[in-house]
Amino acid sequence: MERTDAYIDQNLTRFRDELFELLRIPSISTDPAYADRVQEAARWVAARMEGAGLAAEIVQTDRHPLVVGRHEAGPDAPTLLIYAHYDVQPADPLEAWTSPPFEPEVRDGVLYARGAADDKHQVMIQIAAAESALAGEGLPVNLILLFEGEEEVGSRSLEPYVRDHGPALGADHVVIADSLMFKPDTPSLIFGMRGMAYFEIVVRAADHDLHSGQYGGAVPNPAHALARIIDSFHDEHGRVTVDGFYDDVADAPPGARERWRTIGYDEEAFRRTAGGAHLTGEEGFATWERLWIRPCLDVNGMISGYTGPGNKTVLPGAASAKVSCRLVPEQDPEKIADAFHRHVRAHAAEGVEVEVRTTQGNPAWRAEPTGPLYEAGARAMEEVFGVEPVRVCHGGSLPIARLFSDVLTPSVAVMGFAVPGANMHAPDENLPVVQLERGVRTMVRVYRALAARAG
Amino acid sequence: MERTDAYIDQNLTRFRDELFELLRIPSISTDPAYADRVQEAARWVAARMEGAGLAAEIVQTDRHPLVVGRHEAGPDAPTLLIYAHYDVQPADPLEAWTSPPFEPEVRDGVLYARGAADDKHQVMIQIAAAESALAGEGLPVNLILLFEGEEEVGSRSLEPYVRDHGPALGADHVVIADSLMFKPDTPSLIFGMRGMAYFEIVVRAADHDLHSGQYGGAVPNPAHALARIIDSFHDEHGRVTVDGFYDDVADAPPGARERWRTIGYDEEAFRRTAGGAHLTGEEGFATWERLWIRPCLDVNGMISGYTGPGNKTVLPGAASAKVSCRLVPEQDPEKIADAFHRHVRAHAAEGVEVEVRTTQGNPAWRAEPTGPLYEAGARAMEEVFGVEPVRVCHGGSLPIARLFSDVLTPSVAVMGFAVPGANMHAPDENLPVVQLERGVRTMVRVYRALAARAG
Repeated sequence: MERTDAYIDQNLTRFRDELFELLRIPSISTDPAYADRVQEAARWVAARMEGAGLAAEIVQTDRHPLVVGRHEAGPDAPTLLIYAHYDVQPADPLEAWTSPPFEPEVRDGVLYARGAADDKHQVMIQIAAAESALAGEGLPVNLILLFEGEEEVGSRSLEPYVRDHGPALGADHVVIADSLMFKPDTPSLIFGMRGMAYFEIVVRAADHDLHSGQYGGAVPNPAHALARIIDSFHDEHGRVTVDGFYDDVADAPPGARERWRTIGYDEEAFRRTAGGAHLTGEEGFATWERLWIRPCLDVNGMISGYTGPGNKTVLPGAASAKVSCRLVPEQDPEKIADAFHRHVRAHAAEGVEVEVRTTQGNPAWRAEPTGPLYEAGARAMEEVFGVEPVRVCHGGSLPIARLFSDVLTPSVAVMGFAVPGANMHAPDENLPVVQLERGVRTMVRVYRALAARAG
Repeated sequence: MERTDAYIDQNLTRFRDELFELLRIPSISTDPAYADRVQEAARWVAARMEGAGLAAEIVQTDRHPLVVGRHEAGPDAPTLLIYAHYDVQPADPLEAWTSPPFEPEVRDGVLYARGAADDKHQVMIQIAAAESALAGEGLPVNLILLFEGEEEVGSRSLEPYVRDHGPALGADHVVIADSLMFKPDTPSLIFGMRGMAYFEIVVRAADHDLHSGQYGGAVPNPAHALARIIDSFHDEHGRVTVDGFYDDVADAPPGARERWRTIGYDEEAFRRTAGGAHLTGEEGFATWERLWIRPCLDVNGMISGYTGPGNKTVLPGAASAKVSCRLVPEQDPEKIADAFHRHVRAHAAEGVEVEVRTTQGNPAWRAEPTGPLYEAGARAMEEVFGVEPVRVCHGGSLPIARLFSDVLTPSVAVMGFAVPGANMHAPDENLPVVQLERGVRTMVRVYRALAARAG
């Protein structure tokens, strides 16, 4: 690794400057006004892959292109597919940024820019690692960099691409390069994320809003009926009361709970990132259990009647809510959806009409956190960070993890180099500059460890 | 009355056109953006009073002006004060209107516009009646038209005005010209209305919205906490569970329930005006009892989290609701407010911060439905409509009725010319065009009957 590490030393400033170049392109995927800038970012990424010594291809889709970079090490080498994305969230509210979101700025060793953490540093890390290995001791794995431009808008083109072209790629391992480390100096290998079932409920009592004096007390109030339904979802122990909700929920993977008790989960740090919220939830579980191995149900939004300033004496004609469940691997989103629909109908008040729709459903993903990829990741991270990474789960949902796992290989891991407090999707998104170097040095070690194990 | 009625015949089209002019001015009192338009409406009303032969005055206040029109008939004539309001409710949701709310349109003999029923037709009726009487056999009462621009925002300037200037006006009788008839062809004299206590509840769990995957299941959801509070307000018998809510509620006035059983209250017609709503409420009471002599509690609006199109995986930081109680005469709004605050606090979930504010509070009003004013009103209406008016109560609130009764004279009656199904405070607010003529002809007969009785 000496030549590879020396190459990284010599080129780190350039890698950083190149990341700045990419950050300056506002590749906002959700806003059609920026479609050309997303294309520009795709061209930049492909050119940079070619510069690194990879074969690059821009794959146009209905919306924003995929960029695929490849290196062939030979039929006996393991094949590693690395996923990242080069699109970003919108930057508003602009006035809340300390420096302009598309003019990267370093303050006190921290880089501030939209996309710094989510996920352009990973795009740069993966390209720079391949280049450094190729210029050093060599790149000993078949490498496929699969970078998309639609992550922030639902990854719609990725699934058909993976289903059509994925099996031919012959990936043995997949790294999803889009996440956070466990703590600022403790890296993580994430092996599970929750699934999701999303619903809309509409309660109707009258075909228009009514005067609350002329009708109040004599007709049903749909806001009351909706509140009754929402209040029925949890019992006093913080458990979801939807019949059968926990039927298929298994305990933590063997040994996981014991390991997790020792990793120093920092509840107070979590609480601070939660806008100062009190920590509470299903009784009998720690915060990390509630997030990683327990399902939950939350109202994401609700509205009824008059919500502007001042008083309005209106009796709402309708009330509606968006509700989503985060699911663990054993839960089937369709079964949960059926149970949810039944529960809502069973709790509908007399005299109101209740409609329930399922608007999204995807199962959770969980890998076996052992085997060549996890061992390689752990060894690489320990060398670079000086501490063993924790193997944890995450409360969010990543449908592509399940997709890769189902279509390509069960050997899937999520590796993040952003740090907690990165303000992803928010003003002042940031990344400690040192993470770029750490990421590149980690990835070249992952190649080597994987190849060594396969050899 | 021949000359007066002939004058009404000849000028009815103009009166209607003038009402259209007034309806085109969006005098939305609750929205500061429309403050100038409220002033414009006040100037229009004052100019129209002058045109009718009254002495008009615009009385500026902290917010929206009063407009006062006067006619002096002489010291021996009875003094009749007529109250109406020229401000209107907001028109949203705009997309639910068949024709634009501030472009009056007649379809099948029915006029559609915001303010058509509540209450601009009364402004026009009262001015046109005074003009017609003056142009005909004369106006035999001392007339005071007291029109305000703050009815929809709590009539705050009216009370000090009435307290300061009211006693000097020497009103013997007060007509509140702001309500509905009993049925489309059956007029009513309303002698009681409910009071109101209005509240805002804000539940806060975090100082910003959170990602529902990263935090879901481990922090409180303020929408759940608000739903629990709202669901706690009623038991399964439709009764309000706020402790002490019914303590001071008395039965109907003696004999009233017996009379009301015979007037042919049409529940099915009421149901149709209620947008097809099912009829339900406190167990053991008829619809008219629920509205006229029983208190109630209703959510007027609630909001939390993301309420736009599509899915957003957000965990709300806060949730809020507007809630109002309609009160009967024996209930003290302050006592009810105290009980409400206590109830909300007692039902706050652990880990959330709950704020409750009382934004309005006024007692109910109930008059003795006999005496000169009620007899004059009954005679005038019977002449114009061909049927005797029913003497009933109403479920709405009219703080000023209580104010007039306390400060000016107990001889207060509410006379409405709008008809059930008027969609007050809702899209497609409407008034049968014929009500304008009926109203003008009724009012000139009320003057005469009052003067004859006094003479």
